Amino acid sequence: MLLNIWNLRSDLRYQPIGNLEKKTLFDAMEAKEFKDFSSAMTNYIAEYLENIRDRQVVPSVKPGYLRPLVPEQAPEKPEPWTAVMDDIERVIMSGVTHWHSPRFHAYFPTANSYPAIVADMLSGAIACIGFTWIASPACTELEVVMLDWLGQMLGLPEEFLARSGGEAGGVIQGTASEATLVALLGAKARTMQRVKEQHPEWTEVEILSKLVGYCNKQAHSSVERAGLLGGVRLRSLKPDNKRRLRGDTLKEAIEEDVRNGLIPFYVVATLGTTSSCAFDLLDEIGDVCQEKDIWLHVDAAYAGSAFICPEYRYLMKGVEKADSFNFNPHKWMLVNFDCSAMWLKQPRWIVDAFNVDPLYLKHDQQGSAPDYRHWQIPLGRRFRSLKLWFVLRLYGVENLQKHIRKQIALAHLFEKLCLDDERFELFEEVTMGLVCYRLKGSNDINEALLRRINGRGKIHLVPSKVDDVYFLRLAICSRFSEESDIHESWQEIKASADEILAEK
Amino acid sequence: MLLNIWNLRSDLRYQPIGNLEKKTLFDAMEAKEFKDFSSAMTNYIAEYLENIRDRQVVPSVKPGYLRPLVPEQAPEKPEPWTAVMDDIERVIMSGVTHWHSPRFHAYFPTANSYPAIVADMLSGAIACIGFTWIASPACTELEVVMLDWLGQMLGLPEEFLARSGGEAGGVIQGTASEATLVALLGAKARTMQRVKEQHPEWTEVEILSKLVGYCNKQAHSSVERAGLLGGVRLRSLKPDNKRRLRGDTLKEAIEEDVRNGLIPFYVVATLGTTSSCAFDLLDEIGDVCQEKDIWLHVDAAYAGSAFICPEYRYLMKGVEKADSFNFNPHKWMLVNFDCSAMWLKQPRWIVDAFNVDPLYLKHDQQGSAPDYRHWQIPLGRRFRSLKLWFVLRLYGVENLQKHIRKQIALAHLFEKLCLDDERFELFEEVTMGLVCYRLKGSNDINEALLRRINGRGKIHLVPSKVDDVYFLRLAICSRFSEESDIHESWQEIKASADEILAEK
Repeated sequence: MLLNIWNLRSDLRYQPIGNLEKKTLFDAMEAKEFKDFSSAMTNYIAEYLENIRDRQVVPSVKPGYLRPLVPEQAPEKPEPWTAVMDDIERVIMSGVTHWHSPRFHAYFPTANSYPAIVADMLSGAIACIGFTWIASPACTELEVVMLDWLGQMLGLPEEFLARSGGEAGGVIQGTASEATLVALLGAKARTMQRVKEQHPEWTEVEILSKLVGYCNKQAHSSVERAGLLGGVRLRSLKPDNKRRLRGDTLKEAIEEDVRNGLIPFYVVATLGTTSSCAFDLLDEIGDVCQEKDIWLHVDAAYAGSAFICPEYRYLMKGVEKADSFNFNPHKWMLVNFDCSAMWLKQPRWIVDAFNVDPLYLKHDQQGSAPDYRHWQIPLGRRFRSLKLWFVLRLYGVENLQKHIRKQIALAHLFEKLCLDDERFELFEEVTMGLVCYRLKGSNDINEALLRRINGRGKIHLVPSKVDDVYFLRLAICSRFSEESDIHESWQEIKASADEILAEK
Repeated sequence: MLLNIWNLRSDLRYQPIGNLEKKTLFDAMEAKEFKDFSSAMTNYIAEYLENIRDRQVVPSVKPGYLRPLVPEQAPEKPEPWTAVMDDIERVIMSGVTHWHSPRFHAYFPTANSYPAIVADMLSGAIACIGFTWIASPACTELEVVMLDWLGQMLGLPEEFLARSGGEAGGVIQGTASEATLVALLGAKARTMQRVKEQHPEWTEVEILSKLVGYCNKQAHSSVERAGLLGGVRLRSLKPDNKRRLRGDTLKEAIEEDVRNGLIPFYVVATLGTTSSCAFDLLDEIGDVCQEKDIWLHVDAAYAGSAFICPEYRYLMKGVEKADSFNFNPHKWMLVNFDCSAMWLKQPRWIVDAFNVDPLYLKHDQQGSAPDYRHWQIPLGRRFRSLKLWFVLRLYGVENLQKHIRKQIALAHLFEKLCLDDERFELFEEVTMGLVCYRLKGSNDINEALLRRINGRGKIHLVPSKVDDVYFLRLAICSRFSEESDIHESWQEIKASADEILAEK
């Protein structure tokens, strides 16, 4: 039936490999060398992190700095690992922004811990691609169980957890942006099916053109981007005077849209906005979503970690009304990026909508364990739950709670220093590890202040603007941050303000 | 203007931290312990990889095996790292499918090397989020230069490279699935703009409903999935009798669709299909796309690594006609997952279409270096180019070429063993490190053979099916594979065939 003689190019046909048989020929780094290299890198990393405070937080390089520092092409012959080690300071560190310096207060924290680094070494050595259960059962199963551990730590309702016995459960996404998009796609699939049943005469394109989702105007930019990517309309709604989306606002918008023939399908509630760490009123929003049968996704990317401390769970009141919930242990819970935890009550809407199942990915155990490739945008996935396992065990819940509480206390320390200086005012209530503040006065003077602070090069901040009010954000980012660091950062800000105000 | 006194819950207000000042209180793992743990893990990894051949390639666990092996909740108190090390064999390795065993021949290879593991340690320590240039200049700039190195190694035309001075350049995506989706979104944006100019009276939804993309019926499942995610129609076209998509077939389909009022906008050419490693005729397809002004994306996820060897570049003839090109160093070029290299001639279609730019992400150097967050689906990104830098330098181009050539030679060795046994036939010409073969006879007997081989538990394979012909795939996956391993795998297949045929 099929030929078994091929018209192959003769130079590509099999020839005895001969001298290729020797393992070391291309195995540039044998186990012995790996051990030496790994040991040198371990020492370098410990030295780097333990003394990170002493480095200039943002480098003074200009765009294009790196190209002249390295050759134009990859080397033909292998180099020794010592040559690479020698280049790290010169080529890399000279252009690194040190996110783990106590002088770094920009954006939100990103996690970094020794247990997570070691876990990733193991993940890199096993290097399985966990797209199906059979592709590496441990990779899928540890993730299922770790997301149950984590969900319990947060006090998530049982109906989100795999241990509840139904289809629900957690999954590790790469980023909160992906979680938002996955939830949007699930919401879209669920609504499409319902509307198709109600209106079999409508085409998919017609239905799609009527779909509308909602979020707080202060929601993260990735929510708007998810709408663009998913090709659906998303409305940004006006929050109340504390930057919180309210149930009434949402309800009004929905009813207006329904009157205009649109189909509301998706709501994102943000717990901890990026601009000022405001919390949408989830409980109110949840009631509206339940009444209107709309998928409710909770984006708690940064602040979600705080829910491991029971005293902060009042901020997620109403979470049982959500369809999906997401937060990033890779932000504030000492698990290195990428580890964005997401729980879904009905993963079937994602799984079924995008289930493309070629024979080479089928296996005998399908259905009895999740095949996580259906739960995410990419097909491939690393063994990321190892990081979670290592961090949870080596810190223990108790120490992770202490970490959160300490960082929040440091934010309140900065808040106090700020309020003790009558030239300053706060822009937003301090709830987590973020302080939003400004000089009393114009936006211009605050822009000048931000430029001065960053220009002096000792600490690093980013600004934000809400309703045309420009303010500065100070996020507690480093796990090495101590009270003395906060005093130093405050002194730096105060000195910059002194300069700016003196010049005026 | 703003209050600076807040009605805070008193228990959340700042209180002196006192005993929290001691650094070690929650820093569960200090530098000294990290060094011990890292050293123990390094030894474990070297031991694991050097002896991986001796492990059972697929574990015999059943779904749900792991949950009873660990506690139901995360521990309250920290555990010592030695407790975690002790659990690795019991909990994890008992359920791992060993992708780097020379007995593993399923799917396609995924990369694993010592230099990449050490590079990821450094990436984990720096732990920056490279969403903008300023967020860590080194993270962006090394990526730009590494993608230039890599593009030159492959012989990509200069117009794909950043060093050409225009907007073009490379980016590291997480997976080929994401690259396919990003290219589709770029193609969609470019076509939308063109059609809107030509037909200002058409709505976006109307245009969207007319868009149609194309790929080989044998293209990867992620191409179909990208269509689903992007909400556009994708047509799978029939390949020729060598499983290759031809220019004529594409041209006919396009012209038929245009006659029916549709708007062709996107073509994916696959170089090395997953089922049988067939190569679309890129040169012919490229001509059609240029004539019709359609975005051409090249998916060379697996086979692309072979283009570092000049003798295989005939398979990418016509690449200069493409708009985007993607392959996975994390498959076959010894760079650990995730590292999917993508080049775009006109990244502006992605950058502008999904550019959502809040104040806290703006910086002064915008425009003079790429802000990679616009080039990808997620916002966050790790410092992944370090892996590429370490691997390219520590192996050298020469040894990476030897790696590719050796693995292809091993595939030809298996091909020869197969052809020397007259009960077997090949399904597809062997070009790369994949051999597609079957017992002469029915699909049933080949399904039985596959079950028997995997059931014996010594080696692991997955099957595929093209045009109703079921066949087995043997991929050369492990960098530890030697001639003797191929002989052993063949003996195992032969013995299974003996059993199956004897039972008949």
